[in-house]
Amino acid sequence: MPIVDINCDMGESFGAYTLGRDAEILDFVTSANIACGFHAGDPATMRKTVKLAIEKNVGIGVHPGLPDLVGFGRREMNISPQEAYDLVVYQIGALSAFVKAEGGKIQHVKPHGALFNMAAKNAELAEAIAEAVYKVNPEMVFFGLAGSELVKAGHRLGLRTASEVFSDRTYQEDGSLTSRREPNALIKDHETAVRQVIRMVKESKVTSQQGSDISIKADTVCIHGDGESALDFARYITSALKETGITIASIGSFLK
Amino acid sequence: MPIVDINCDMGESFGAYTLGRDAEILDFVTSANIACGFHAGDPATMRKTVKLAIEKNVGIGVHPGLPDLVGFGRREMNISPQEAYDLVVYQIGALSAFVKAEGGKIQHVKPHGALFNMAAKNAELAEAIAEAVYKVNPEMVFFGLAGSELVKAGHRLGLRTASEVFSDRTYQEDGSLTSRREPNALIKDHETAVRQVIRMVKESKVTSQQGSDISIKADTVCIHGDGESALDFARYITSALKETGITIASIGSFLK
Amino acid sequence: MPIVDINCDMGESFGAYTLGRDAEILDFVTSANIACGFHAGDPATMRKTVKLAIEKNVGIGVHPGLPDLVGFGRREMNISPQEAYDLVVYQIGALSAFVKAEGGKIQHVKPHGALFNMAAKNAELAEAIAEAVYKVNPEMVFFGLAGSELVKAGHRLGLRTASEVFSDRTYQEDGSLTSRREPNALIKDHETAVRQVIRMVKESKVTSQQGSDISIKADTVCIHGDGESALDFARYITSALKETGITIASIGSFLK
Amino acid sequence: MPIVDINCDMGESFGAYTLGRDAEILDFVTSANIACGFHAGDPATMRKTVKLAIEKNVGIGVHPGLPDLVGFGRREMNISPQEAYDLVVYQIGALSAFVKAEGGKIQHVKPHGALFNMAAKNAELAEAIAEAVYKVNPEMVFFGLAGSELVKAGHRLGLRTASEVFSDRTYQEDGSLTSRREPNALIKDHETAVRQVIRMVKESKVTSQQGSDISIKADTVCIHGDGESALDFARYITSALKETGITIASIGSFLK
Repeated sequence: MPIVDINCDMGESFGAYTLGRDAEILDFVTSANIACGFHAGDPATMRKTVKLAIEKNVGIGVHPGLPDLVGFGRREMNISPQEAYDLVVYQIGALSAFVKAEGGKIQHVKPHGALFNMAAKNAELAEAIAEAVYKVNPEMVFFGLAGSELVKAGHRLGLRTASEVFSDRTYQEDGSLTSRREPNALIKDHETAVRQVIRMVKESKVTSQQGSDISIKADTVCIHGDGESALDFARYITSALKETGITIASIGSFLK
Repeated sequence: MPIVDINCDMGESFGAYTLGRDAEILDFVTSANIACGFHAGDPATMRKTVKLAIEKNVGIGVHPGLPDLVGFGRREMNISPQEAYDLVVYQIGALSAFVKAEGGKIQHVKPHGALFNMAAKNAELAEAIAEAVYKVNPEMVFFGLAGSELVKAGHRLGLRTASEVFSDRTYQEDGSLTSRREPNALIKDHETAVRQVIRMVKESKVTSQQGSDISIKADTVCIHGDGESALDFARYITSALKETGITIASIGSFLK
Repeated sequence: MPIVDINCDMGESFGAYTLGRDAEILDFVTSANIACGFHAGDPATMRKTVKLAIEKNVGIGVHPGLPDLVGFGRREMNISPQEAYDLVVYQIGALSAFVKAEGGKIQHVKPHGALFNMAAKNAELAEAIAEAVYKVNPEMVFFGLAGSELVKAGHRLGLRTASEVFSDRTYQEDGSLTSRREPNALIKDHETAVRQVIRMVKESKVTSQQGSDISIKADTVCIHGDGESALDFARYITSALKETGITIASIGSFLK
Repeated sequence: MPIVDINCDMGESFGAYTLGRDAEILDFVTSANIACGFHAGDPATMRKTVKLAIEKNVGIGVHPGLPDLVGFGRREMNISPQEAYDLVVYQIGALSAFVKAEGGKIQHVKPHGALFNMAAKNAELAEAIAEAVYKVNPEMVFFGLAGSELVKAGHRLGLRTASEVFSDRTYQEDGSLTSRREPNALIKDHETAVRQVIRMVKESKVTSQQGSDISIKADTVCIHGDGESALDFARYITSALKETGITIASIGSFLK
């Protein structure tokens, strides 16, 4: 029976600044990637978001990012693998303490933004991040872009590793995401986006921009929590997936 | 048999900046208060300091501070008890992850600088900090200025609570430290400083600036790790205490 | 003929976070207090806000705050007068460079949040801030709470000093604002708020919470740029003031 | 008559952290590159360093860096030209205000660390930085690695542009510095270092690692202010240059 996790970035508010519609989105997703204060988030936001996720029975994930608040962790920085290891350990710990205090459990770790993108292509960075996860708590599920160095590093270390796919992004023949600088990078139509996800989950296939079918593993689908239509899309994709017979469940409950 | 712990602030380097002679001081102290990135320290420094402390078999402590790097956490900030709780939970978690990754165990938590000073006098802040410790891990020893609100809050919550004394500070009749703005706040002579500590440990007494003897509990003595004579004093106080029959041991090994 | 300036805090967005409806509010106010990156704002936001203010012919002001982004500069910090001086000089400079690059001119300086509140009551802090303004550019108008230490310090240094009043706050018999912790601190009704302003501008009087009339100087009125009804109130107060014969103009054009 | 400027990074202390021997080094250099709080430095340090430089009659320069305090601005970040422009404008302004307040004058701007290195090779970044200098104050001298995109951008905009050489680095045949990852990148012997500088200043030539002589313009030489032998080398190079008939003077006094 086809099964998939739906994950979303959460806890990205900061001080007086509010971002995202976390409380509402949490009704639709099964895993929450919670910012840890480096690219977004702050201690108060982390506590509140963890509490909400526990109440709504959503899998809690650490979402470690680069130390770049003004750039929202989206600007690549030339950090060493050791630096990547250190900042991931730090952020896993910070979130874990709130989860412990609220009586919950960490489910997964998903690197954020530029850290995620750099590590997807850089084996050494990927290894360093996976090692941080492994050394702090090897029970945590490790998220990486399907087919990327992150997934390979997770497997090498023996972590339960989730292959992540994107509903609103197109793919290249080599399995990578089409760069956002290219015209067809984004899928804006909700129906097309969901059809792509259904096929990735049920057939493990996606049609590349070059027109050929490629293999892809889809353990978890990333959706967005901010923007005008985020909530509509969250509602739409969950009901569409269920209608087509796909079970939606937290990654920790089914990933081997 | 008289017994006491000797603690020192550690891991206060930051990026390209080096502060303190941690590796050398660790040979003399039994508990290390490790900065967590808010008032000092950074992820790399935390990892290295934790590793050193484990190697030298020194009790590892979290040293959470105010979010004020340029002020080294020494400027009072009007934070709410909830904010104090949040930033202490965060910092306990961040350090705990490094300790976990290096195979060690957290022994204690000691608030830093202005956070320590404000909470010593403010019952609500003290309670919030103690609660943060309790909720993340009630096995940790909680440090507070002897006789202060921190110690009271720790006891109320049922935490193992250590009364801390200072070797180089004078005391007022009410048991508080003489303000640094007063002329006789500091004891600069090493011999006088050590004599005061020995009396506090053996007789639970200290002579106040007003000339009377007051009761004081001395579970742990704070010494400094930076400055010209830090290492000399560390060497001197440890040998002087031992000579007079006082056992020096990590607080976690003897505090009830 | 009665004349008054209307000022509003601006440029408080930060990185991916948007705050306030600056472009729209700028159509109604005559002076903009632009955040400088310490409590809010960032270099890109500063550049854009300066550009907008120049286009809309609004007086440009520096809005220096405490170094507390997560607290939005609203938490009092125990900084020394020298530290206050330094951070005000720094922030005046940072904004001035954008104003220079865009071909504009700085009109005024208004301390933000907790820095404003602390200095209103603390003569030494007020003096240090006024001195920072004076030493960088004595042509700038200096804003302070009407009757406060800020206004006194500005006058002592010979700065053109603007007495600021608040439309939505009530006053105590001694001329101070009613603390936000008191029940009647805020005036939520737009009509009452505007009536209070009109009387302050025309008669230099306000009725205190104790029921007596007190003298108050009203060179500039502060209104808010965020929140649901900010734009409505901006529109309402400007038209109401004009209808009653009050001229609204940038402070730099009329203050002596 | 041969003439050259000697510049050194300054004002890199931060809060409780001290770095460099600024006061002593200032006796030997003719231009000081002062950190502005992004990669190092803080408002208090900026004020003190500016004051010292004025007292010692050393040319004052802005030393803008990437927003990466923990990395000391040495880690490349994928910032856009617009972001580079914004952060350079901001930092020029911040330092300028201290210079204004202390009664001095800004002489030059030299980008720091990774910003300097990235812009040396990237024409768009170089252009953006040069434009920031131009728009805030076109009288300032612009520093760039000799032969680099920075120097080209400075010339294109009509800025007085100084070609900078390094005493302790070796050069490649294309005029670039040998990467620090290569074995022969650094010249550790003081005599060899100074001989290289003398030849660059007098003959506009340097011998590349490939053995051939290449042309190089040497308006200003960079020396280091921290490390064991910084002061010795500063003393040595200044006396050696003078002995060989080279005048040492602030760049602003002779560059056309």
